[in-house]
Amino acid sequence: MTKNGGRGGTERLVVIGGDAAGMSAASQARRLKGPGELEIVAFERGHFTSFSACGIPYWVGGDVSERDDLIARTPEEHRARDIDVRLRTEVTGIDVAGQRVRARDLDSGAESWTSYDKLVIATGARPVRPDLPGADAPGVHGVQTLDDGQGLLDTLARARGRRAVVVGAGYIGVEMAEALINRGFEVTVVNRGKEPMSTLDPDMGRLVHLAMEGLGITMVNDAEVTKVLTAADGTVRAVATPDAEYPADVVVLGIGVRPETTLARAAGLPLGSRGGLLTDLAMRVRGHENIWAGGDCVEVLNLVSGQTQHVPLGTHANKQGQVIGTNAGGGYATFPGVVGTAVSKVCDLEIARTGLREKDARRVGLQYETAVIESTSRARYFPGTSSMTVKMLAERRTGRLLGVQIVGREGAAKRVDVAAVALTARMTVEEMTALDLGYAPPFSPVWDPVLVAARKATAKLRAS
Amino acid sequence: MTKNGGRGGTERLVVIGGDAAGMSAASQARRLKGPGELEIVAFERGHFTSFSACGIPYWVGGDVSERDDLIARTPEEHRARDIDVRLRTEVTGIDVAGQRVRARDLDSGAESWTSYDKLVIATGARPVRPDLPGADAPGVHGVQTLDDGQGLLDTLARARGRRAVVVGAGYIGVEMAEALINRGFEVTVVNRGKEPMSTLDPDMGRLVHLAMEGLGITMVNDAEVTKVLTAADGTVRAVATPDAEYPADVVVLGIGVRPETTLARAAGLPLGSRGGLLTDLAMRVRGHENIWAGGDCVEVLNLVSGQTQHVPLGTHANKQGQVIGTNAGGGYATFPGVVGTAVSKVCDLEIARTGLREKDARRVGLQYETAVIESTSRARYFPGTSSMTVKMLAERRTGRLLGVQIVGREGAAKRVDVAAVALTARMTVEEMTALDLGYAPPFSPVWDPVLVAARKATAKLRAS
Repeated sequence: MTKNGGRGGTERLVVIGGDAAGMSAASQARRLKGPGELEIVAFERGHFTSFSACGIPYWVGGDVSERDDLIARTPEEHRARDIDVRLRTEVTGIDVAGQRVRARDLDSGAESWTSYDKLVIATGARPVRPDLPGADAPGVHGVQTLDDGQGLLDTLARARGRRAVVVGAGYIGVEMAEALINRGFEVTVVNRGKEPMSTLDPDMGRLVHLAMEGLGITMVNDAEVTKVLTAADGTVRAVATPDAEYPADVVVLGIGVRPETTLARAAGLPLGSRGGLLTDLAMRVRGHENIWAGGDCVEVLNLVSGQTQHVPLGTHANKQGQVIGTNAGGGYATFPGVVGTAVSKVCDLEIARTGLREKDARRVGLQYETAVIESTSRARYFPGTSSMTVKMLAERRTGRLLGVQIVGREGAAKRVDVAAVALTARMTVEEMTALDLGYAPPFSPVWDPVLVAARKATAKLRAS
Repeated sequence: MTKNGGRGGTERLVVIGGDAAGMSAASQARRLKGPGELEIVAFERGHFTSFSACGIPYWVGGDVSERDDLIARTPEEHRARDIDVRLRTEVTGIDVAGQRVRARDLDSGAESWTSYDKLVIATGARPVRPDLPGADAPGVHGVQTLDDGQGLLDTLARARGRRAVVVGAGYIGVEMAEALINRGFEVTVVNRGKEPMSTLDPDMGRLVHLAMEGLGITMVNDAEVTKVLTAADGTVRAVATPDAEYPADVVVLGIGVRPETTLARAAGLPLGSRGGLLTDLAMRVRGHENIWAGGDCVEVLNLVSGQTQHVPLGTHANKQGQVIGTNAGGGYATFPGVVGTAVSKVCDLEIARTGLREKDARRVGLQYETAVIESTSRARYFPGTSSMTVKMLAERRTGRLLGVQIVGREGAAKRVDVAAVALTARMTVEEMTALDLGYAPPFSPVWDPVLVAARKATAKLRAS
C-alpha cells in the first residue's frame, strides 16, 4: 500500500539526518529491499555522512591524522548503493498527517516537500551552548561536528599562546584535555561538579581528578563559568568564574548535548522528560506505525532503572539504526534498551561505568550496598601490571548487581563489559563470584578485579 | 561433635596439598573459625605453598625475575595465621572409615597417622610423561613445579647450543615456546594434532599456527614423538618422530596433565571418566559429608555441555578452595561449574576460548551454526588497532550461544569474558547483538567484535 514513490509498487523511505543512526537504518533497509521495492532518500544538513563524532578528540589530539579517517561511509558510497543522499539540505518541517517533509536547500534557499511512506528521524543532538557573554568569540569551540574539529585545529595552529581551558569534565571534556596536552597546551579544566566525570560517583570521580592532576592538568571543580573574556581583537583571552579568571588562548566547550528534537516537537511527536523522542521496542515513535527514530535524538530505556534516559553514544545509534532498517525493510528486530555502559580515557587513565550510580539507585527507590576494591590488571608479579579500582553496587536483599565503575590503567575500561552482560542477565553479585572469566598471568590476577569486587559486595550484603 | 583435635571442642581440618585449592580452603576456613574452634593441618610434599604454576613460563622466559615472585603466600605466612603447614610431608593413605590420613616425612622417612574431622583433598595434577625412550635424559624438562622451572633455567644456562624443542602445542606448549624465544633459543614445537591449540577448533588453531610461524617458531603438526635421542654424555640431543629428527639442546614437555588421584582411588572415593574426583556443588566428594576436594584433582561440571570435564586452571582451584573453606568453616557456598574459559598468549598473539568447540557440541548432541568474523580491537582509524578473528557457535533453533574462540592481538583475549558471562546466563546470540558493551575509539569499534560475530551468527540461524 504505497501512497508515494516514483514507480508503481515502490515505497519511499525518508531519513532525516545522515549520521550513524540514519545511515545505518538506510543501509540496512537497502540490504533487505532493493531499489525496485524501496526508494530511500536521506536528508543531511551538513557536508558529511556517517562520521565518527567520538573520534573528533583523537583527530584534534593528533592520534588520527586525517579528517576523512573519521568518515565511515561517504555520500558517494551511499549513493552507489541506491540511497539518495541530499547534503546541505535541512528538513524544516514534518507533516505527519500528510506523510511528507519539507526540506530547504541550504545553498539556494529553495524549499520543497517530499512525501514518504516510511520516515526515520535521526536528527541527533545539539551541544549545550551556555548563554554566556563572549561564548561566541573566536577561539571558543564546540567539538560536535567535523567542521567544529577543523575550526578548533585552525585555532590551535594560530593560537597566540599555549593556554587552553576546557569547560566541562565529562567524556568530551576529559578527552579534549588529553587532545590539548598532546598538542602541547597547558590545560585547565573548569568543572561545575564536585569532581570530574559526573557519570561516576564522586568517590570514583576523585580518582580521575587525582590522575588528571598527575598528568599535569589543572582541575578546577565546583566552578561555574559565568563569562568568556575577550582581547581587543575580539578573540578569547580568558574564562571567568565568580571567583577567578583562567587565561586562555583557546576554549573548548564540552558541556554535553541535548536531543535535537525541534522538528519532532513541532510535529507533535511524543517526547520524554529529557526532551528526546519516545519510541517502542521496535524503535517506532510511540503511536506511529510508520515513523521510527534512533540515535542521539531519542530516549532509551535503562534496563536497570526501568526509566528512560538520554544516552548520546554512537554505539547505540548504530544498533538502533540497524533495528530501524530491519523493521523498515520488512524484517523484525528490537532494541531492548541499555544498561548505561560508557568507557573513556585521559592519556593512560581508563575510566568505565555501567548500570546505576548511587544517586541513580536512590532516585528510583533501590536500596543498595557498595563495595570498593583495589586490584591489578595482570598477575601481581607480571611486568606492566597496574592497579585498578572497582566499585560495585548491589541491591539489598536480592543481591542483584546494580552498577560497576572502574578507574585504572591498561585493561580497566573493557573489564566493565563483564558487568554490562551481568546487568543484562540480572545476575546477583554472588552469582558473579563464580563467573568463569579468562585467567592467565599476562591478562588478569587469578581472581579478576570484577570478581574481587563481587566477593566483597557479597560479603557486605551478608553482613547487612 | 568432634572425635579428634587436641583440645576439647576443637575440630581438626586436614588438608592434603598446599597449593591454590588446598591453601585457599585452609585460609578461608581460618577466616571463619579461629584456632580455638578449628585446628588446621596442611600436608605438602614439596618445598612451597600457594605458588602460581601458571607463572612458570614467564619466570623461565624472564618476564618474572624471581622464583619467589610466584609464591602468593609462604608457609611462614600461613603458619602466622595458625595453619599448621607440614612441608616435605607426603600423605600416603586415606583411611576414610577411620577418619585419618597416613603421612610420611620425606626427609626422615617416618610415617604416622593424623586423624581428622574434616578432610580437604587438593592433590593437584601430574604431568603426562610419555613412556618414551630417553624421556628422563638430562635436558628434558616438565614445567609443573617451581623445582621444574629452576631445573629448566639451569639447563638453559648451560646448554651447548640454542636449539629448543617443545613437545605439545597446548597452553603450556605455546607459552613455553614464547619463553624460549625470549631466552634466545630457536624453537621447534612438535605437535600431535593437526593444528596447535587443540582447545580451539582446527580453523582457529590454524591462525595460531600461522602466527607462530610469523614469530619464527617452527611448527611441526601431525607428528608423534617416539623417542628422545641422547648424546654420548647422556644428555638430550634430539627428538625423533617416525618421519624426522629434531636436534635439541633442551626439550620441554608440555603434553598436559592428569588429575592426581592415586590416594583417592586407593581410598575408594568416586572418580569420573577423566580420573578426577567427583564432587557435589558444595565441593564435597560425592557421598561423603566431611570430605571436600578441589583444584586440579577434581572434575568440574561444564554448564554448557552438561558433563564433567577436567580443567586444571588456577582460577578454578582458587574459587573452589574458597568454597570449600567457607563450607568447612561452617558457612555456605557453592561452585556451580565452569563454561570452559581459557586465555593465553604467544608473544603478542592472544588466544581465547570459552564454551564448546564444534566437536564438543557434536559429542553431546547439540546441533549448531558457526559464524567467523574478522574485526579490529580499536576503531579502524585509531592508532594501534589490530585485527582479531572471532568464531561463534550457536545452537540451531534456540539460538543459544554455545561457544566463542578469539585469536588476535591486544585486547583479544579478555574479550572472551563477555561470552563467558553470556554462556552462564544462557543468552541467545540474538540477545547478545543488543549487549551494551563499552565503546570508545581507543577501546573498540562501534560494533564490538563479539557483537559482530553475534550478528553474523544470528543471520546464519535465520537463514538455516
